[in-house]
Amino acid sequence: MTAGADMHALVAELYPICRSITGDGLRETLRLIGRDLPLQVTEVPSGTEVLDWTVPREWNVRDAYVADAGGTRVIDFRRSNLHLVNYSVPIRKRMPLADLRPHLHTLPSHPDWIPYRTSYYEEAWGFCLSQRQLDALPDGEYDVVIDSTLAPGHLSYGELVLPGETEDEILISSHVCHPSLADDNLAGIAVSVFLARTLAARARRRHTIRFLYAPGTIGAITWLARNRERAARIKAGMTFTCLGDGHPFTYKRTVAGDADIDRAAAHVLARGGTPHQIIDFFPYGYDERQFGSPGFRLPVGSLMRGRHGQFPQYHTSADDLSFVSPDRLAESLRTVTEIVDVIDGNRRFRNLEPYGEPQLGRRGLYRAMGGTEIPDLQFAMLWVLNLSDGRPTLLDIAERSKLSFAAIRAAAELLEQHGLLQPV
Amino acid sequence: MTAGADMHALVAELYPICRSITGDGLRETLRLIGRDLPLQVTEVPSGTEVLDWTVPREWNVRDAYVADAGGTRVIDFRRSNLHLVNYSVPIRKRMPLADLRPHLHTLPSHPDWIPYRTSYYEEAWGFCLSQRQLDALPDGEYDVVIDSTLAPGHLSYGELVLPGETEDEILISSHVCHPSLADDNLAGIAVSVFLARTLAARARRRHTIRFLYAPGTIGAITWLARNRERAARIKAGMTFTCLGDGHPFTYKRTVAGDADIDRAAAHVLARGGTPHQIIDFFPYGYDERQFGSPGFRLPVGSLMRGRHGQFPQYHTSADDLSFVSPDRLAESLRTVTEIVDVIDGNRRFRNLEPYGEPQLGRRGLYRAMGGTEIPDLQFAMLWVLNLSDGRPTLLDIAERSKLSFAAIRAAAELLEQHGLLQPV
Amino acid sequence: MTAGADMHALVAELYPICRSITGDGLRETLRLIGRDLPLQVTEVPSGTEVLDWTVPREWNVRDAYVADAGGTRVIDFRRSNLHLVNYSVPIRKRMPLADLRPHLHTLPSHPDWIPYRTSYYEEAWGFCLSQRQLDALPDGEYDVVIDSTLAPGHLSYGELVLPGETEDEILISSHVCHPSLADDNLAGIAVSVFLARTLAARARRRHTIRFLYAPGTIGAITWLARNRERAARIKAGMTFTCLGDGHPFTYKRTVAGDADIDRAAAHVLARGGTPHQIIDFFPYGYDERQFGSPGFRLPVGSLMRGRHGQFPQYHTSADDLSFVSPDRLAESLRTVTEIVDVIDGNRRFRNLEPYGEPQLGRRGLYRAMGGTEIPDLQFAMLWVLNLSDGRPTLLDIAERSKLSFAAIRAAAELLEQHGLLQPV
Repeated sequence: MTAGADMHALVAELYPICRSITGDGLRETLRLIGRDLPLQVTEVPSGTEVLDWTVPREWNVRDAYVADAGGTRVIDFRRSNLHLVNYSVPIRKRMPLADLRPHLHTLPSHPDWIPYRTSYYEEAWGFCLSQRQLDALPDGEYDVVIDSTLAPGHLSYGELVLPGETEDEILISSHVCHPSLADDNLAGIAVSVFLARTLAARARRRHTIRFLYAPGTIGAITWLARNRERAARIKAGMTFTCLGDGHPFTYKRTVAGDADIDRAAAHVLARGGTPHQIIDFFPYGYDERQFGSPGFRLPVGSLMRGRHGQFPQYHTSADDLSFVSPDRLAESLRTVTEIVDVIDGNRRFRNLEPYGEPQLGRRGLYRAMGGTEIPDLQFAMLWVLNLSDGRPTLLDIAERSKLSFAAIRAAAELLEQHGLLQPV
Repeated sequence: MTAGADMHALVAELYPICRSITGDGLRETLRLIGRDLPLQVTEVPSGTEVLDWTVPREWNVRDAYVADAGGTRVIDFRRSNLHLVNYSVPIRKRMPLADLRPHLHTLPSHPDWIPYRTSYYEEAWGFCLSQRQLDALPDGEYDVVIDSTLAPGHLSYGELVLPGETEDEILISSHVCHPSLADDNLAGIAVSVFLARTLAARARRRHTIRFLYAPGTIGAITWLARNRERAARIKAGMTFTCLGDGHPFTYKRTVAGDADIDRAAAHVLARGGTPHQIIDFFPYGYDERQFGSPGFRLPVGSLMRGRHGQFPQYHTSADDLSFVSPDRLAESLRTVTEIVDVIDGNRRFRNLEPYGEPQLGRRGLYRAMGGTEIPDLQFAMLWVLNLSDGRPTLLDIAERSKLSFAAIRAAAELLEQHGLLQPV
Repeated sequence: MTAGADMHALVAELYPICRSITGDGLRETLRLIGRDLPLQVTEVPSGTEVLDWTVPREWNVRDAYVADAGGTRVIDFRRSNLHLVNYSVPIRKRMPLADLRPHLHTLPSHPDWIPYRTSYYEEAWGFCLSQRQLDALPDGEYDVVIDSTLAPGHLSYGELVLPGETEDEILISSHVCHPSLADDNLAGIAVSVFLARTLAARARRRHTIRFLYAPGTIGAITWLARNRERAARIKAGMTFTCLGDGHPFTYKRTVAGDADIDRAAAHVLARGGTPHQIIDFFPYGYDERQFGSPGFRLPVGSLMRGRHGQFPQYHTSADDLSFVSPDRLAESLRTVTEIVDVIDGNRRFRNLEPYGEPQLGRRGLYRAMGGTEIPDLQFAMLWVLNLSDGRPTLLDIAERSKLSFAAIRAAAELLEQHGLLQPV
């Protein structure tokens, strides 16, 4: 539970910061992510062409509010950064409520919640507020102030690479552009950071593991534009989103649908024994849609609890610190660690005594007295021996035998030690 | 509903004619089918070798009856052409009821209905009547008269070809040999004729559409014998039968089972939202079995409502004008039009901006303000962009996205107009 | 029922013999199996290297017992050969019950049954007895006598080969090493022997049929070691075990899972109309695991009623003559005969009139008067004609048509006689 509490503390620390797809809030977030890890931050200038897109101007906000005639702030960015439509252009103007209204966004179905809205690629401004706040606003004149800047600057993203024995990569990607939304995606960030710490402490990794912390869509596109060739090394990946809430896990498959990561996630979730869903890829959601675009087709799935757009708190002020819990974060961390372990430990072997079963007894690998019960590890050895003709992977064998990947992997290691198995 | 009423009127006009696999009734039927369409009629002489078969002698009937001793017609071809076993040889003879009985066919399970029977390839004669009629016949002598001719003549069939941009063909085949049976197959004929009128009015057709109106089995075999090479151009096809009754649709797959026509029919029927069945090919039924024979293996399925031999009215006098309705005919016409539209509109595209998602916003193809609901067309665009790497067809994309073919096709056209997509 | 009674009599005759993986009991068993059949017995010397194994010393027992201080035999091999742990080394010693106890094996969950235990590859000795026997033993001194020999000798196995028109083989393998256990595997042996008699009486066999009677594991391994090249001729096979008890059939698939034998067994069991199970291969059970090892990968499944280790009487004295019945043995014989018939009769044909349907009527193969019901054989002919383009086998056609293999085979023979079909 320590890891769960620590992850929740990180979420709480990041929560108040006003993040966007560019700007100082994003930079501060990367700084906190990278405190204990060798994070490398890249700054890409506004105006840079990235694939079909252009890096936008950098957005920063000093202050934003709507004040009534008496000067009282009736909507105040300082109370919640969700009040301001993200990427609002600056404005300073007095106007009647009737003129202000088209710029005000509420959620009538949840009258106490503030919605989260953005306007990155269309110049606009606006405020978000609860329906009750809006209903309480009397007619009259209001001072509208958005003290923001939209100016040439940079888009920032962070990368952390844990080298492995091969250049084959596993990619873990989290979007880092949402402001005060705890589950989407501070929870994903926290699980990613703690997975990085866990794996960094390992003595051996077969794969190189790359952690990417970039703003949604434009950040992934910028990274892809700058890493076209390196991207081809990615053999498996996941985007992490909404990993702290109380919903059961949902894993969203890659475009191909049967990539190693799809099977590893399905295996781990199935053996976890708790309810979960596996859903097919669809070209909406998070950055798996960029990694999976036809020019790249990287095998990147997505792991989440609450699903994109499918729970009422999604993209509202109700996605707050109470919506995520240490226990769920810890369960998420255990699960993603197991999935990465399956990918990293998945290999092919060849049985070196393939004619009949080798005599395990004289190697001390078999109970001596013939009875009727067989322990799991012995069963796992028989499966590995029978199927290891050089083609199936350990995950194939685990799936077919209905034994855990861990048992199959342990059996393979034991057989390799006894000279009965050779990696392919 | 106009089309429905018009189709029912055509069924009613064709109903009284005594059709068979040859003869003047068949010719008159083709004349009525071709009134408003450029139907081309072919006459093939009796004795012509066609594949493993021979075109039979032509059969025509002037009169046929059984009269009692007092001269009263107790079974009369003029009242219903079903009373005469189709292809009966001529006879003029007085005989006791005991000798007549083996030539009389009834349906004891439906004592008011007249069955439909044929004896095309075995020389025989007979009458069909209701069980009640038979039960009412007193013993005694009867005059049996069949004033028919079986003589060298021709087998007739009609073809209507709507040229398209390519020589790839869609075949719509209806059998035209059944006498006074409304559903089997005047309904199929009527839907075919009105589909032809609908498609003839179109400005563009990618496929050439061929409508075949031929007698069952021997007609299809004759057409195939005379069109061995042309047949290979058929990329999709359906036989139309029993399309006017009240049963839900049944689509019978091609021999291959996964041809384009199979998938198009399944897609349209599934999205129609009404109960329906998809059944596997079996080598019985209508002319799909000839088109699908191993020498041709044409991808021809079969669409019907009531299934061959599976409803009590099948091949009886109860398959009359009241058994088919304008509404059902109209629904059938809508459905077959949609199926043909899927086949004709199904193409492959290549995404010209395949690296990441293209920025739809700056092309005016994307809502500006980030919220949580996405309209279908936009979703369709994202699916088309993601999957269009040159391999999947629009139908593949519709199936995978669970969106309608129409939405996927509209999205593809929009993206093609904006230079984001190129046909393969 | 004669065959059932005869098989039960053979089981009863073999029951008292003390079999093991070597020795005179095994030899006597092979002698009785071979009485009416040209069985060829092979003797392989102890110490022979066979694949990863070595043929062990030969084991024979003259006597074995535990006697109390008064000289009364409280455990006596002469009463049941299950009392002695199979392959026990010789011993002759007086000892207190406390020292004897670790060598005594019981089944506390079934206190009246004697378990069956072996120690082939670890030098050990022991006795098996019922829990009640054990509970009744007073403390005190006991004389332990095992008058066995473990000495250089031979491992014996028997083979019966019925030559066929081709060298392609069907293998029927039964283990013959278990002592007084009626179902496992005297029932399997009896069904194999009577299948051999049935097939030997046939005029034609396309396949060569090989019946193997060898001790479990080491016997199969020895046979494989001596027949590496011949083994490749095996196109289908089954191990027979536990075929006399009251459980429904279970067929265990080959490693590949979709071999001809898997499909033949599934077809016959499904059409048998009684409950049955088809289970996937797993590398435990009987000698299918040796035949299926990666170096050989022979398509050998396993047919059984009671499943290996899954019923309480398994490997206990309750697997006695009352546990198997003539009726079940007879049903097993019928079933295995049908499975072999499917394999042996499964061929590919080419339709010689592939363009359209051939006119069956003029060949006398079709009812003359058109009605609505079609007999099975006629339907089978249409299926065979439509699908026989040289690729599908008769079993493929039976599966697709949902008709019996027997009907499809009869149709193919009729069509072949009429010159419409040619074997490929």
